[in-house]
Amino acid sequence: MSGSIYGNIFRVTTWGESHGKALGVVIDGCPAGISLKERDIQKEMDRRKPGSIKYGTQRKEEDKIEILSGVFEGKTTGTPISLILYNQDQRSRDYSNIQHIFRPGHADMGFENKYGIRDYRGGGRSSGRETAARVAAGAVAKKFLKELGVKINAYTLSIGDVKAENINIEQCKENNLYMPDNTAAEKAAKLLDKAMSERDSLGGIIECRAKGLPIGIGEPVFDKLDASIAKAITSIGAVKGIEFGDGFKAALSKGSVNNDDFYMRNGKVRKYSNHSGGVLGGFSDGSELVFRAAFKPTPSISQIQKTITDTGESTEIIINGRHDPIVVPRAVVVVEAMTAITLADLMLINMSARIDNIKKFYS
Amino acid sequence: MSGSIYGNIFRVTTWGESHGKALGVVIDGCPAGISLKERDIQKEMDRRKPGSIKYGTQRKEEDKIEILSGVFEGKTTGTPISLILYNQDQRSRDYSNIQHIFRPGHADMGFENKYGIRDYRGGGRSSGRETAARVAAGAVAKKFLKELGVKINAYTLSIGDVKAENINIEQCKENNLYMPDNTAAEKAAKLLDKAMSERDSLGGIIECRAKGLPIGIGEPVFDKLDASIAKAITSIGAVKGIEFGDGFKAALSKGSVNNDDFYMRNGKVRKYSNHSGGVLGGFSDGSELVFRAAFKPTPSISQIQKTITDTGESTEIIINGRHDPIVVPRAVVVVEAMTAITLADLMLINMSARIDNIKKFYS
Amino acid sequence: MSGSIYGNIFRVTTWGESHGKALGVVIDGCPAGISLKERDIQKEMDRRKPGSIKYGTQRKEEDKIEILSGVFEGKTTGTPISLILYNQDQRSRDYSNIQHIFRPGHADMGFENKYGIRDYRGGGRSSGRETAARVAAGAVAKKFLKELGVKINAYTLSIGDVKAENINIEQCKENNLYMPDNTAAEKAAKLLDKAMSERDSLGGIIECRAKGLPIGIGEPVFDKLDASIAKAITSIGAVKGIEFGDGFKAALSKGSVNNDDFYMRNGKVRKYSNHSGGVLGGFSDGSELVFRAAFKPTPSISQIQKTITDTGESTEIIINGRHDPIVVPRAVVVVEAMTAITLADLMLINMSARIDNIKKFYS
Amino acid sequence: MSGSIYGNIFRVTTWGESHGKALGVVIDGCPAGISLKERDIQKEMDRRKPGSIKYGTQRKEEDKIEILSGVFEGKTTGTPISLILYNQDQRSRDYSNIQHIFRPGHADMGFENKYGIRDYRGGGRSSGRETAARVAAGAVAKKFLKELGVKINAYTLSIGDVKAENINIEQCKENNLYMPDNTAAEKAAKLLDKAMSERDSLGGIIECRAKGLPIGIGEPVFDKLDASIAKAITSIGAVKGIEFGDGFKAALSKGSVNNDDFYMRNGKVRKYSNHSGGVLGGFSDGSELVFRAAFKPTPSISQIQKTITDTGESTEIIINGRHDPIVVPRAVVVVEAMTAITLADLMLINMSARIDNIKKFYS
Repeated sequence: MSGSIYGNIFRVTTWGESHGKALGVVIDGCPAGISLKERDIQKEMDRRKPGSIKYGTQRKEEDKIEILSGVFEGKTTGTPISLILYNQDQRSRDYSNIQHIFRPGHADMGFENKYGIRDYRGGGRSSGRETAARVAAGAVAKKFLKELGVKINAYTLSIGDVKAENINIEQCKENNLYMPDNTAAEKAAKLLDKAMSERDSLGGIIECRAKGLPIGIGEPVFDKLDASIAKAITSIGAVKGIEFGDGFKAALSKGSVNNDDFYMRNGKVRKYSNHSGGVLGGFSDGSELVFRAAFKPTPSISQIQKTITDTGESTEIIINGRHDPIVVPRAVVVVEAMTAITLADLMLINMSARIDNIKKFYS
Repeated sequence: MSGSIYGNIFRVTTWGESHGKALGVVIDGCPAGISLKERDIQKEMDRRKPGSIKYGTQRKEEDKIEILSGVFEGKTTGTPISLILYNQDQRSRDYSNIQHIFRPGHADMGFENKYGIRDYRGGGRSSGRETAARVAAGAVAKKFLKELGVKINAYTLSIGDVKAENINIEQCKENNLYMPDNTAAEKAAKLLDKAMSERDSLGGIIECRAKGLPIGIGEPVFDKLDASIAKAITSIGAVKGIEFGDGFKAALSKGSVNNDDFYMRNGKVRKYSNHSGGVLGGFSDGSELVFRAAFKPTPSISQIQKTITDTGESTEIIINGRHDPIVVPRAVVVVEAMTAITLADLMLINMSARIDNIKKFYS
Repeated sequence: MSGSIYGNIFRVTTWGESHGKALGVVIDGCPAGISLKERDIQKEMDRRKPGSIKYGTQRKEEDKIEILSGVFEGKTTGTPISLILYNQDQRSRDYSNIQHIFRPGHADMGFENKYGIRDYRGGGRSSGRETAARVAAGAVAKKFLKELGVKINAYTLSIGDVKAENINIEQCKENNLYMPDNTAAEKAAKLLDKAMSERDSLGGIIECRAKGLPIGIGEPVFDKLDASIAKAITSIGAVKGIEFGDGFKAALSKGSVNNDDFYMRNGKVRKYSNHSGGVLGGFSDGSELVFRAAFKPTPSISQIQKTITDTGESTEIIINGRHDPIVVPRAVVVVEAMTAITLADLMLINMSARIDNIKKFYS
Repeated sequence: MSGSIYGNIFRVTTWGESHGKALGVVIDGCPAGISLKERDIQKEMDRRKPGSIKYGTQRKEEDKIEILSGVFEGKTTGTPISLILYNQDQRSRDYSNIQHIFRPGHADMGFENKYGIRDYRGGGRSSGRETAARVAAGAVAKKFLKELGVKINAYTLSIGDVKAENINIEQCKENNLYMPDNTAAEKAAKLLDKAMSERDSLGGIIECRAKGLPIGIGEPVFDKLDASIAKAITSIGAVKGIEFGDGFKAALSKGSVNNDDFYMRNGKVRKYSNHSGGVLGGFSDGSELVFRAAFKPTPSISQIQKTITDTGESTEIIINGRHDPIVVPRAVVVVEAMTAITLADLMLINMSARIDNIKKFYS
């Protein structure tokens, strides 16, 4: 149980190291009969591709996804969907500077201590590259959710202290940073240029919204909708925090303000506000699901840092090569993917809730 | 899978409704040979007992825990530990005002939509009372962790806009609010009195610290230490956000600042700072684990709120009776419990990591 | 993970020792809206009650089941159903003869070696008494399955070398041995009387049949219908083998004989024969599910047996007191229970198989 | 949850269809530091390779296994081990005779009913070919178990009514049938030749033995050693029954005969007999683990069989092409693989049993 399996019914297993032969994912439990083509998945892969964003690494990976199983004549068959991505860019490099040295802010030290062995080439299993497999699985989850009318949108809310103010989702595609506010994106770009020139890196916040969830998705105690999402998102490398709806601001509010009053419109439950972020008592409440995740600055920087070797001696390290000065824009699609996988699973689990619906199903 | 089972090896199943006969928990997978007495658990139960805190509900529950199985001659046997808590305070009340009406900010509406039936007495399964069972399980997890030198401390960091400034853990026991700063606690008490007089409620933040974790606890991909804690804590009723180390502030930082440089002291890995909050790449990094959870204001307030009935009609509701104007102080021990359960599980999982250790174990 | 949790969606956790305060079960994931009363469960408990069968132990347990949670106004609520059974018969006995001695054929030695501690009173957790909790959970599973038209019947097929020949299910209730053939039951009774007079015990075979399963229940690879049933049934204490349909005889057959040819009748798939026992490729095939389980003779016998102490010395033991000379008749309802729990789980899992059905469900 | 994931800590996910691009397996939770090369796995693959046995299908698959992840510099890293096997033999065939027709004795009908779609090429996911992935995972599990001194041996015990009488494991390699008795193997070969000439098929029995298990492996209630093995083995395609030790014969025995008396030798627990087959109360008991599995005759036969189409019409079918007249010899290594995977998992789970051992581990 090295923790590479996620989900209960819609179960995703990722595998592969940053600089190994390949990486991939197996999805066990995707319902049969969903139309699925490689281009459905490729489209999502391309959104996190290095180089698609100016501030992403220049590593030239094609990231071409291949479906190896679970799809027949263009449709899912209900059996495991195996997706693979060969690593193109495996030219032998000189890893001598990191082979025996733990990079600050990275998983290197934990890995070495836990396992006594470590694939030091580019982060191995703890590389951001592992998220490519999550994006592939997320693309499949999205196809499933689309059939049920659920749609997920994430975007860069802020980079450093530059925040998107007038949110217009359409503008996400118009700038390099997936920011729904072109003016803010311009400012953020300048901030990033400055950080790069200082051999430094920045953090930021991603906001994610899901529409179309029926009321009651999520389970009442440990497997609440928000608890499940919290795990899914915090499992993404650089995430240091997550909040739902008003989040940490709710801690400063009052019950009379923070409660969202209900009313009915066209036979549907509505709320006058959405402080809750679409989740009440662990269940979706009919409003848009809204949450934000905080990402720390990329730990790989080309400055001298103090650190230790794997034999316990003090040393210094400079991490050369070009590195993303920020992970946020490329992580947007990863946040969507983990959200999609979680919602897909919870919507399947939810089907067991009521005997009246189960009887109808089996009649 | 109504989601009332938590954990992989150290597995906790809670059951019971707020106003049913009893509630309890079964722990499957607690190692054998740990000394365990009812008073070990009772001590923790008393920390969340209604009435132990001025701002807690006045419901007089004895909350007397009973061990029904899994302990023999004062020691755990490795078989399921069943703990039960009878509900004393079951006097028949008049629930007519909430039987068919959904309270804003509560799980009522989600429950009714999901299951088509709802134990409307005091929140049923979604009542804060369910956390009593978590606290009982947490007490057992703490006994286990104590054997391994791991210690957990949570406290009230803030209530509304009043924050503990000069943190002194000892002072937690000296005020009613589990606040490690008596001066701040006094201010917060006034704030709460004001809120109560206005029939309103407040939110706040709990901070939690765990010491003594060896390096490498947590699994590299989905079951990261922080991801697992994030789920555990967000599954507590009123939590709206969680952050580790610098958390959301890390999004405003730079790599050169946020990275914690390593050094060695007395043969042990140390860090010059702890921006990470003790977790790197999903593994414990040898520093103190530090996280904060934001709690929303108690949704039950004695003010008129707009809402709907279970047949979809608009109405208003006033929730009478005394309710906690804040959940934070009583939730402190719940946060500790969920942390303990999660760490116990991850420390057992971690034992499978390396063949050299496994061979030693079996030789 | 002491292995006391069973199932994926319909999840059953049993707890309790033979001579502890109580034993019980928590069912997490039972759908809401199923009518459930204590007498529904008690009826099944009474079928395995000691003393209800002449050849069962004379221990006078009332085995009165109590519902503690998960049922409101006579219906399941979708939250965990906690069932408890207090041990009445806890008079202090003299256990000195077994406290430090391992009984041959029992779990004593394994328990002591694994855990280093053992509740020696009457077998503790490994006592047949643990199955009472399974029967209680099975009663709930049966109520659920009844709603879907699935019905399970088990009976004593043989005791020693006496086998039911002309099977008539009605006769099960007419003799003490749950044997569907009164003539065979009479012979078996004589055999048991003889075994008892010789201070010996006998084994036997239980056959189980389930009707009404739709085609396709069970998952194609590891979680096949028969594989899942095999685990469920082999987890019952004295079971030493299980076979489906023709079972071990199929190993002596030919493909041309063993294959069940298909045909259609009234728009339904039929088979000319049922050598398969109702399961093909891991899926229910529309025919009756049929399997048999072999039970070893009760290991507790009042004869001198060679054994060892818990400090590794050779010794002898005579197990006094009245013990069941056979477990089979009382195990019939346990076999039904484990079958019901397994089928309930697989029928819920099956609901995620196809997008067309899922879309209908959510529309 | 299409059931393609197996295990709790040592978790195996297989994927791939008989005539798809490739098939493979991902092992999550294999401890780090185990020496692993492709030839360790290939050796086992070759044992089930079509054509290695005269009575196996003539399909020419190279079955060349490739390690894609989880191994670095010849050692496992603790991260998921991904193994892949490309299907060489994908020449386009004419499947028109089975595309719309359900083969008797096969999973076709169940698949179509459950999923509404079916990869009809050679059985798809339900093909025996899926077991190649299990064998690959089993090879890794064996490498792990070898480090702990556990060794597994399976062999053909009988084919039709020809049974190995004088068991000599060495002779397994000397005949085509993995039979530990050359004389019996000769007779069985004649029986098979006859069956083939009659366009028919045969069944048989595989016996499996595991040595070196410490006492106490397996969990006391649902996850017993024998229950876990029963599921693992019954999940292999053609298995119709499994029995441990004396198995079904134990149902005909007496307690005084069937109990295995204990004694001590050289400080170790011994038993005078092994009727139990090495498992007592669900725990390994220090004796050899012994069980037998019954396999039905191969359902694919070149005779006319009555069946139905996928639109519910009566028809007939002859399955042409060469098919294994028996699955048993090629299944020997599959039985070993599933046993190895199960034991690997249970040995890891067992490490959490006792606080004294856990404290030693962490000190």
